[in-house]
Amino acid sequence: MIDKTIRMNYLYDFYQALLTDKQNQYMTLYYLDDWSLGEIADHFQVSRQAVYDNIKRTEALLEEYEEKLMLLQRYEKRQSLYKKLASIIQNNGSPDTMIEIIASLEKLE
Amino acid sequence: MIDKTIRMNYLYDFYQALLTDKQNQYMTLYYLDDWSLGEIADHFQVSRQAVYDNIKRTEALLEEYEEKLMLLQRYEKRQSLYKKLASIIQNNGSPDTMIEIIASLEKLE
Repeated sequence: MIDKTIRMNYLYDFYQALLTDKQNQYMTLYYLDDWSLGEIADHFQVSRQAVYDNIKRTEALLEEYEEKLMLLQRYEKRQSLYKKLASIIQNNGSPDTMIEIIASLEKLE
Repeated sequence: MIDKTIRMNYLYDFYQALLTDKQNQYMTLYYLDDWSLGEIADHFQVSRQAVYDNIKRTEALLEEYEEKLMLLQRYEKRQSLYKKLASIIQNNGSPDTMIEIIASLEKLE
């Protein structure tokens, strides 16, 4: 399990187009620009609790999207196959094995 | 531009997890099982127009998801790079070119 902040950054990257403007603003400030909940609350003149609730709900929503579409999971699977393939090429490995890996990649969505 | 039925089948494949049960039922019967609008209407005891409207709305929704997440577009891009890579391997092409293609693939989401 990767660290939560890294995971949220990835999930946000994959699913941000499905979020509302407000959700996007809070997530960008909190996760990408590293603002505190208090700083975001001051900036938008809302309570710290309101910002906290919004971000928690957005995090849950991102996990829901990942459960349904598995974009991060599929991305990691592809990246791992790319690494494997590159290593075989760099070590002058068997072309048949290379083609097998590509066949696995082609079957992934 | 690929044929509309093929495109809808692909989009449905990528985004069905984001649809409601009813949207999924109608789309499966219409696009995968090839039922007519009239047959679906009879089966659910609703009007043909209601089925038509529901399917049209779902098609528009699938296109909206594709505009936001571009899963089909990215899938096609990857498939085309896999084909290119497989062809280079089968023709004993340059390992440097193979590694370059993998680098392009790694950068795609």
